[in-house]
Amino acid sequence: MANSSDTPTDPLLDALRAELPDQIVSTDPEDLHSRAADLGPADHLTPQLPAAVVRPQTVAEVRTAVRLARTHGRSVVTRGAGTGLAGGANAVHGCLVLEMTGMDRIIRVSAEDSTATVEPGVIVADLDAAAAEHGLMYAPDPASWTISTIGGNIATNAGGLRCAKYGVTRDSVLSLDVVLADGSLISTRSATFKNVAGYDLTSLIVGSEGTLGIVVGATVRLRHRSLAVETIGAFFPDLSTAASGVVEMSRAGVQPAITELLDSATMRALDEARGSDLARRGEALLLVQTDGHGASVEAELVREALRGLGAEVTESGSEEADRLVELRRHARGDGLPDEIRVGEDIAVPRSQLVACIEQMHDIAVAHGVELKVVAHAGDGNLHPTFSVRTSGDEPFEQVSARLDAALDDSVRTALRLGGTITGEHGVGGYKLRWLDWEQSPEVIELQRRIKDAFDPTHLLNPARGVL
Amino acid sequence: MANSSDTPTDPLLDALRAELPDQIVSTDPEDLHSRAADLGPADHLTPQLPAAVVRPQTVAEVRTAVRLARTHGRSVVTRGAGTGLAGGANAVHGCLVLEMTGMDRIIRVSAEDSTATVEPGVIVADLDAAAAEHGLMYAPDPASWTISTIGGNIATNAGGLRCAKYGVTRDSVLSLDVVLADGSLISTRSATFKNVAGYDLTSLIVGSEGTLGIVVGATVRLRHRSLAVETIGAFFPDLSTAASGVVEMSRAGVQPAITELLDSATMRALDEARGSDLARRGEALLLVQTDGHGASVEAELVREALRGLGAEVTESGSEEADRLVELRRHARGDGLPDEIRVGEDIAVPRSQLVACIEQMHDIAVAHGVELKVVAHAGDGNLHPTFSVRTSGDEPFEQVSARLDAALDDSVRTALRLGGTITGEHGVGGYKLRWLDWEQSPEVIELQRRIKDAFDPTHLLNPARGVL
Repeated sequence: MANSSDTPTDPLLDALRAELPDQIVSTDPEDLHSRAADLGPADHLTPQLPAAVVRPQTVAEVRTAVRLARTHGRSVVTRGAGTGLAGGANAVHGCLVLEMTGMDRIIRVSAEDSTATVEPGVIVADLDAAAAEHGLMYAPDPASWTISTIGGNIATNAGGLRCAKYGVTRDSVLSLDVVLADGSLISTRSATFKNVAGYDLTSLIVGSEGTLGIVVGATVRLRHRSLAVETIGAFFPDLSTAASGVVEMSRAGVQPAITELLDSATMRALDEARGSDLARRGEALLLVQTDGHGASVEAELVREALRGLGAEVTESGSEEADRLVELRRHARGDGLPDEIRVGEDIAVPRSQLVACIEQMHDIAVAHGVELKVVAHAGDGNLHPTFSVRTSGDEPFEQVSARLDAALDDSVRTALRLGGTITGEHGVGGYKLRWLDWEQSPEVIELQRRIKDAFDPTHLLNPARGVL
Repeated sequence: MANSSDTPTDPLLDALRAELPDQIVSTDPEDLHSRAADLGPADHLTPQLPAAVVRPQTVAEVRTAVRLARTHGRSVVTRGAGTGLAGGANAVHGCLVLEMTGMDRIIRVSAEDSTATVEPGVIVADLDAAAAEHGLMYAPDPASWTISTIGGNIATNAGGLRCAKYGVTRDSVLSLDVVLADGSLISTRSATFKNVAGYDLTSLIVGSEGTLGIVVGATVRLRHRSLAVETIGAFFPDLSTAASGVVEMSRAGVQPAITELLDSATMRALDEARGSDLARRGEALLLVQTDGHGASVEAELVREALRGLGAEVTESGSEEADRLVELRRHARGDGLPDEIRVGEDIAVPRSQLVACIEQMHDIAVAHGVELKVVAHAGDGNLHPTFSVRTSGDEPFEQVSARLDAALDDSVRTALRLGGTITGEHGVGGYKLRWLDWEQSPEVIELQRRIKDAFDPTHLLNPARGVL
């Protein structure tokens, strides 16, 4: 049992190696480093290294790993593909990282039930593709959906473009299999469309960022896949008018599947990166998709409503409009080499969208930073990105402080307008500093007690998601 | 302070009278008796009388009442209109009943936000009517919606006819104001469409049957009110084929707003009670409503799909079909004077609907009882009613035992088919006896801990909703 190397023995590692297959336990430094963080803002958190990365293939292996971590008093941080933007999957020092990407089977797609049963490591777009074979779709489509896992989407209650009409991840999850902190395995409920037996553990665990249990299986609801989809691009002379198009379409009785808003800075960045020709055509782009059996009727109502606001609107059936949706999926884009930037994920009631966007611009001006805005406008969910092109004259800390101040102000603005600090990315570790700006001490205390009810020793994703 | 009457003084009553307006505190025996139970099965529970009924007009009065009940070690049972069917609002001996019907203001309907903010005592159909003035609707429409309150609907996570397409109550609730057992007042979250800050307390409290807190305000999401609605009545030669129509419509790519199934016994009962002429036309009736901008396209697809199964289908625009929906809303109807009956609220995955209905008939035959079935078929939610017409020869206890045995078997069947003991009525007190048939000890234990986290002394609706 003695370890002959120079490294002192870690009894957790010994136990993991004794009870789990060799190939699923890694202490390779490269693995430890690459699994230390998700895609959240790296500069805000000092990365901490896990002791090991375990890639379970079975529920039994998950339970064993949890049991061993508990026995050895070590935290468990669960991750999917690590595409989160809030540090919710960041490791804590010496923890066990459970990487669920190896459990990636689509167990069953039932066309009769309009459901799919999946393991947590399934890529979201793959689930949607499997549903498509039956004329169905899995609706939630976060920008990361070609690389992110359903387990990660469940952990963060991921949104996406189509959730304006079809709801967020929570609205598509019927039942979860979950390994709890004590190693027990529960099924939250039967996978019927309606079920009011007891408390809604399913909804509670969706969006809990790995802090209440480890999702090892899910049955999700599928929706009809629309054969008819109409896409409308509407270029506006100014951003506020474009934003007001959201309410105008609603007034016309239309529920678009997608309503995305891009400002001129975003269009310019896309033009530069992708060779498109957007910025020339207006100061803002509203991108709308209608679907279902009324898609063309709704599209006509959309065109009429947006033209009434002075927009230049693409014609029916134009291929350009479809290309615009693809461009939108890349709209947050990559940073420039000399750029420091920070992004947000605030959401406000729809009626406050125009005011919120205008105040974002005021904030950028006040702090001397650049602003780009894209928004899931139908949901009032904005992604402002504040950035500074560094000249080298200003110390990094100073630039960073200005950006942080802009971020703080943007969050304050969202809250003042009746909104939230996070619409779809989650709190993770990154947004903990704002959580008590939004939540009252009583709400924070209730959440602490719920955490304690599930995980009394704070084994799972400690210091993430809730204060 | 001495009480001069013969009745011994109840210090809780003295305190309530000292701190609350006279007119909202009642100890009138008629009030105590009429507020002792909801519309659940009376014969299964011995009614217990509250010490007082308080009808608060303000949040402050709710908080005072809760504080006084806690101080005096007495339970609080909250009720709306008392239309629940599972005993969830039944009083416990000596408790304080909070009747929320006096807090019935619609605070705000925002067309721009597609939301409404209401007090808990608002009648659900009134909320829908207020939304209608803005071209919107409040979607959940349980059979009781012209008399039940939004607070009661939230407590039970009520379903209804339209929830096949628009979801249950939980899917329409954005934010709740809740008085907790310790008397504190929380707002669960901001009323944005998307919000992932912390745990989803809103969804947890919806459907918790008054056991976690007292809902004193709600902001709900409204949907577009469809101008076009098409109703299709389809008469089938047998019930199983009618039930299979649900999957057939789904295969045709249609998401009806309403999909209701009535069996021949239900049709006969309606014919007797309402003078209709349904039973002559088939052994089962599937009642379908499509809405939205594609309503007529979808209706044509429905007609085609159901005719393909051998149904006799009503023509487009027939007034008869609309009358059928009104009839359906009364389909569970009143009992006959010489009839003893018990009803259920099971739900199964949609693919199991046909098997479930067939097994309900086998169960009725096995126990020598009559069966009627209506179903929210699109959701797989069945309401079988078992009944016996008493000849007087058989003792009541014996009849009751046969009915109970049939009920137990129906619940076992639902669970065996992957379903639940309650699709939309709730557990209340009545279905506690089945809850551990559905839920594992681990799930029951988790729910106990959640209850303890919110309400450590079990002040609120004790022994209801969770084991």
